Amino acid sequence: MQKQEIQQIIDLKTKPLGALGLLEKIALKIGLVQQQPKLELKNPHLIVFASDHGISQSGVSAYPTEVTPQMVLNFLNNGAAINVFCNQNKIELSIIDSGVNYDFGDYTILKNCKIAKSTKNFLCESAMTSTQLDECFTHSQKIVAEIAKKGTNIIGFGEMGIGNTSSASMLVHYLTDLPLEQCVGRGTGLNDEQLKTKLEILSQAKNTHGEIKDPKQILATFGGFEVAQMTGAMLAAFEHNMLLMIDGYIASAALLVASKLKPEILNNAIFCHQSDEFGHQYLLNYFNEEPILKINLRVGEGTGCALAYPIIVSAVNFFNDMASFESAGVSNKDEEIC
Amino acid sequence: MQKQEIQQIIDLKTKPLGALGLLEKIALKIGLVQQQPKLELKNPHLIVFASDHGISQSGVSAYPTEVTPQMVLNFLNNGAAINVFCNQNKIELSIIDSGVNYDFGDYTILKNCKIAKSTKNFLCESAMTSTQLDECFTHSQKIVAEIAKKGTNIIGFGEMGIGNTSSASMLVHYLTDLPLEQCVGRGTGLNDEQLKTKLEILSQAKNTHGEIKDPKQILATFGGFEVAQMTGAMLAAFEHNMLLMIDGYIASAALLVASKLKPEILNNAIFCHQSDEFGHQYLLNYFNEEPILKINLRVGEGTGCALAYPIIVSAVNFFNDMASFESAGVSNKDEEIC
Repeated sequence: MQKQEIQQIIDLKTKPLGALGLLEKIALKIGLVQQQPKLELKNPHLIVFASDHGISQSGVSAYPTEVTPQMVLNFLNNGAAINVFCNQNKIELSIIDSGVNYDFGDYTILKNCKIAKSTKNFLCESAMTSTQLDECFTHSQKIVAEIAKKGTNIIGFGEMGIGNTSSASMLVHYLTDLPLEQCVGRGTGLNDEQLKTKLEILSQAKNTHGEIKDPKQILATFGGFEVAQMTGAMLAAFEHNMLLMIDGYIASAALLVASKLKPEILNNAIFCHQSDEFGHQYLLNYFNEEPILKINLRVGEGTGCALAYPIIVSAVNFFNDMASFESAGVSNKDEEIC
Repeated sequence: MQKQEIQQIIDLKTKPLGALGLLEKIALKIGLVQQQPKLELKNPHLIVFASDHGISQSGVSAYPTEVTPQMVLNFLNNGAAINVFCNQNKIELSIIDSGVNYDFGDYTILKNCKIAKSTKNFLCESAMTSTQLDECFTHSQKIVAEIAKKGTNIIGFGEMGIGNTSSASMLVHYLTDLPLEQCVGRGTGLNDEQLKTKLEILSQAKNTHGEIKDPKQILATFGGFEVAQMTGAMLAAFEHNMLLMIDGYIASAALLVASKLKPEILNNAIFCHQSDEFGHQYLLNYFNEEPILKINLRVGEGTGCALAYPIIVSAVNFFNDMASFESAGVSNKDEEIC
């Protein structure tokens, strides 16, 4: 179906023209991806990638690195925000150990894709080798292929990794024109002093590595493993023609890298929320997209995706189920009334 | 429970302090209303009040008045946006004929509370008499009492009535300090010329009626029947200690009137979306409240409530079901790590 054809279905629904706002844009996007007269969302799935970051040893985060494995255990024990919201909205949850400094043992929803127990500290050296980056992408392809077998056609991406807004900041700075100081934010809650330190450390890291142009090399340099596996998973999900639910700053940075490798991926992306990080607002403008939710979330974990999912369902439902002016016998604005 | 006690439960959940943003404020509000350690939402209900407006004969709307009964029939036949979203989110829907110029016959979800077949044109005379306003409130009390019998503790309010943004504009202008031109917007889609006409007509109406101070007299003067019945239903729902889901400009104008009669009602109000009407943005600031959704809806019908309901459920669920730092063994920011 062409864009015009889908838009006409939307425009003839019994509502003022354009009156369902962002829902109409989402329905149009899904229609273009699915190319069928009835839209459908099947077996929604959310993957949370978790990893530790060498850079977190340099004091860029409000929380100690021990929190990464503790929060992963919290996911595995069904106690975190993302569990609550996935349970509520019937979204299947998978947790990926991309490189956490802890051995978790066996859990049904956990997948061991550990590259190492942490990335290296990118203040001094590359966060990962190019071989490790390739390993990340290989894992991602397998993870997504397995999910695709269940018929999933919409997938969300979350992350947990103390220090990962620092990775995201570097990726956004290197891949867009945004000055570093505007890419760097408070993460999970830095005060003014800590924010200053974070910016200083990231400026030093920039001096260490100098100019890099290749998106994959930028990703390898600044990591983390969870960001790299998420980038790979987005690319794989696009190959399976899935809709991609994009969470906050880190997920959007991963999508930014993915879009440099595969620009068409943006056609499948639904932006679920706008985080408090200025860099994220910048990225949404950069992609020319509006988020579904602007409710000051800064949890990560993919919570924005899980919370916004019912709104995406609403976009599909109005498209499929609302009466048209003709079928309901309602006068349209431009028609003559007899 | 005191505010502090509820806030502490929220603060000890496994997430950075304040990181669930607006969800935390909603959970706090619900906690204060419900005064119990586990929050709950029972039998959510949405009432759509429909009525015709005398003022619509003066050319204030983009749509002809025939659309009011046509859209009510669309509700009754399950074809409108509000049907789709209520069906999706398992919200019971009632349609109230507050004063539509049409005889609908019998439908399970329709209640006949018709005061007259339209309000009078407030350009020349009062939209309704004070006796009619009292009748509106009596109907509302009965409607809400019946819903309360089912155990409902959360209720949303929608409306359908060609011309009713004109009523809302007058209510907001008379009950706040906002100049009339800023209270008047494009409604369901006026162009510049039509917007100018609408403002001229409403300015004339202001000259006709001059200064009025009493909120009930203001409501009777500018109507409509659906706005008056909605105002009454909000007051009745507050007496039943229900949570009130507030939709767009018209529902917020009804709440404004209700709040002048019962200021505490605002403690129970959850603001579901921000409409495109400038007057609505002003009202949200006036109430010092943030909306759940800002996605450019301008359908009315209570659609903002039905769409935002899953997010309110999420606020309840995180409060009830998320692990605390202690129960999950997660290090908090301010703790020493051993």
